[in-house]
Amino acid sequence: MTNKTDVQKKVVVIGGGTGIFPVTAGLRHLNVDISTIICVSDSGGSTGRIRDEFGFQPVGDLRQSLAALAESEGEEWIRKLLLYRFEKGESLKGHNLGNLILTALQDMTGSTSEALSKAEQIFRLKGEVIPSTEETVDLKIHYQDGTSAVGEHLLDDNSTAKPIADISLTPPAKLSANAVVAIEKADYIIIGPGDFYGSLMSALSPDGLSDAFKNSKAQVIFIMNLMTRLTQTKDMTARDHLEKIEAKIGRKVDVVIINNEPIAENILTRYAKFGELPVVNDLDNDSRVVRGKILSDQIFVKGYEDNTHRELLRHDSRKLQKVLAEVMKLG
Amino acid sequence: MTNKTDVQKKVVVIGGGTGIFPVTAGLRHLNVDISTIICVSDSGGSTGRIRDEFGFQPVGDLRQSLAALAESEGEEWIRKLLLYRFEKGESLKGHNLGNLILTALQDMTGSTSEALSKAEQIFRLKGEVIPSTEETVDLKIHYQDGTSAVGEHLLDDNSTAKPIADISLTPPAKLSANAVVAIEKADYIIIGPGDFYGSLMSALSPDGLSDAFKNSKAQVIFIMNLMTRLTQTKDMTARDHLEKIEAKIGRKVDVVIINNEPIAENILTRYAKFGELPVVNDLDNDSRVVRGKILSDQIFVKGYEDNTHRELLRHDSRKLQKVLAEVMKLG
Repeated sequence: MTNKTDVQKKVVVIGGGTGIFPVTAGLRHLNVDISTIICVSDSGGSTGRIRDEFGFQPVGDLRQSLAALAESEGEEWIRKLLLYRFEKGESLKGHNLGNLILTALQDMTGSTSEALSKAEQIFRLKGEVIPSTEETVDLKIHYQDGTSAVGEHLLDDNSTAKPIADISLTPPAKLSANAVVAIEKADYIIIGPGDFYGSLMSALSPDGLSDAFKNSKAQVIFIMNLMTRLTQTKDMTARDHLEKIEAKIGRKVDVVIINNEPIAENILTRYAKFGELPVVNDLDNDSRVVRGKILSDQIFVKGYEDNTHRELLRHDSRKLQKVLAEVMKLG
Repeated sequence: MTNKTDVQKKVVVIGGGTGIFPVTAGLRHLNVDISTIICVSDSGGSTGRIRDEFGFQPVGDLRQSLAALAESEGEEWIRKLLLYRFEKGESLKGHNLGNLILTALQDMTGSTSEALSKAEQIFRLKGEVIPSTEETVDLKIHYQDGTSAVGEHLLDDNSTAKPIADISLTPPAKLSANAVVAIEKADYIIIGPGDFYGSLMSALSPDGLSDAFKNSKAQVIFIMNLMTRLTQTKDMTARDHLEKIEAKIGRKVDVVIINNEPIAENILTRYAKFGELPVVNDLDNDSRVVRGKILSDQIFVKGYEDNTHRELLRHDSRKLQKVLAEVMKLG
């Protein structure tokens, strides 16, 4: 029996990389229709090699987001396959299989959107991954001192870190048609969690994004970053984060989810070594703030040891699911 | 409603490479349970590179056979994905995506059989592909002059071609456990079509194969090769082919399917340039012979131009399906 109340709510998640895993994994239990909008300016590694050699849009973050949609019981092999990294073989070492699959599909279909759509069909993914733009772009970083530089890798480079004013895409690029539709038809738009400039602000940078938000009746939810990053968001408070997001989308965020679960002392110490601190919450008097215990109990030391220490601390999908269900009045 | 007559017949197809496509594609319309047993001594190309670099069993023919099981309406993208070949990229050029997927699964599962089983599950394949042996082997070619040499590539090499007495695996290797079960439980075993030594005789070479045939009640069907190959089966008649197969399996074949559709003159001319002729049928007085029009109308010129001219002529899946349905009293 189908009636109006049975229609799945449409949720758009805007983010990228590993940050998106716990949100989509959590949402999948809420019986909602998930679309993920991802920035495709990623460079470096397997993704960068393929981008340079094939001239296709980079697929690294797309792979991660696709894999997140496969993360359910019985489907773990699809996730493993999409995330598999070759550790041997002169020609293959360092390549991610998911990247190679998406590259092949880009070649076969001629478009990143079509490639993702085929991947969703082939791997029976429970949702949709949408590139924020169909065009091949780089990130341009505008520093507070008035200078600018091009390349997403600069967002990870301690040696060149300076306070950032904003980022843009170069060349300027339009929001993809699928992303326009997803944003305009969404019931909820969740921004984050994710690398603030590398994933969130970049995905919000295509031309036409604020128009799509203007035409959308969606409730907009921002999941506040847990920690600052020396190279991107040093000294930025919760309000600073929020205001930069609101400037990009051209409207106010409706709900801000902020973690209030204490972070273990030993984790804080490790982050502090890199000059990275918990985001100071200066939004407590803001009625839009929802606080919740949303941290994962697991410590992701592997990421830490690889010097991608920001992945030490993650959100917990079940806890996030609970908070999101309350906010969205679902489940 | 399930009763005895609803139980799917178990059909084992022994072969490899492109030859197996029309048989499995045809069988899939007959609502039977298909297992394909494939030799894994393949060398050269993408398969050879991966074999050398990873130390896994070569997967080239496995990829082909998996793809054949995906060849149904709506699933053509899975087939395309498994057969996709990278034409660009310094590191990727020449690699087949299906090989890379199987290599990743071999690495993740630790076994070729497990890798195939996962691939069947992930890609919803309608059947099973079984490596003839779990061990990493080469082909040893025993010539009629008493000499021998190792390497499957010699079967394609005109310069070293001499009349072949037999082939074996080196080091000797046992029939895989899954192949034993499949053969013993089969209702029908179809041998061919395929490269006579490279695909058929090699798949029949593991130790224990004739014991499995002895323990099987299956009707054994041999689809006779259409043409001789200068490097493998020069001057061999239909009876010569049949007797070599029977020597390997240690029993008589029950049905021999021989094409009686005329081959176009221009195709015969092209084959003749390579010293390759239609297999002479000297089995007409044999009551086991079933003759039928089973040739594809299509001419596979692409294969011809690549100098893999043996692929010029192929079986037609619908025609084969009709003949097999009559032989197996199905459909």
